[in-house]
Amino acid sequence: MRHTYRDVEQCATKVALDLISGKWKPIIFFHLSSGAIRFTELWRAIPRVSKKVLLEQLRQLENAGLVERTVHNNFPPEVTYQLTPKGAALAPILHRLDQWAMMYVQGVVQIS
Amino acid sequence: MRHTYRDVEQCATKVALDLISGKWKPIIFFHLSSGAIRFTELWRAIPRVSKKVLLEQLRQLENAGLVERTVHNNFPPEVTYQLTPKGAALAPILHRLDQWAMMYVQGVVQIS
Repeated sequence: MRHTYRDVEQCATKVALDLISGKWKPIIFFHLSSGAIRFTELWRAIPRVSKKVLLEQLRQLENAGLVERTVHNNFPPEVTYQLTPKGAALAPILHRLDQWAMMYVQGVVQIS
Repeated sequence: MRHTYRDVEQCATKVALDLISGKWKPIIFFHLSSGAIRFTELWRAIPRVSKKVLLEQLRQLENAGLVERTVHNNFPPEVTYQLTPKGAALAPILHRLDQWAMMYVQGVVQIS
């Protein structure tokens, strides 16, 4: 079968990789994979990321339908983030990628 | 646990994603996952990629230890590429990513 250029741009694996390839996205995924988390809690768990950049990465994940943002009407109001079913289905695949790198690539660390 | 900035840079999942995130790498992986392939055959199977760019992507995959290049002393001489054990261990994970995107992302196509 001869593919078109557009096919390559829309190649399923490539599109999936692009969705999760942001600098902070794997670590965001890791933290969200154990359940909903408050924004400030997530921010404190990730070193050296500014709130602005973290919000931007979360917004991209939200736009991709991988992450859901919920505003709770508590006092004080609270914002939590959690994986959608689409995002949750990706989590075990990222976990396998993580295990692969731990086995085959020198010098990597597992975020835990 | 509090991570350091360096930990995030070396996060196993992120490092793995970076290794395979080149524009043509998923489609190269797809073609190599069925066995060794001659360079010209690979080039013909992928639309609109120049030989120069394809060689560059292959060299990056080679440097990452994912792909092995073999020169056969036939006449005319022949160069083939195949996945190393490290690259072959990644193939089923990329396949799962592909299946995930086919299920959850609209408009993507499966390279076949």
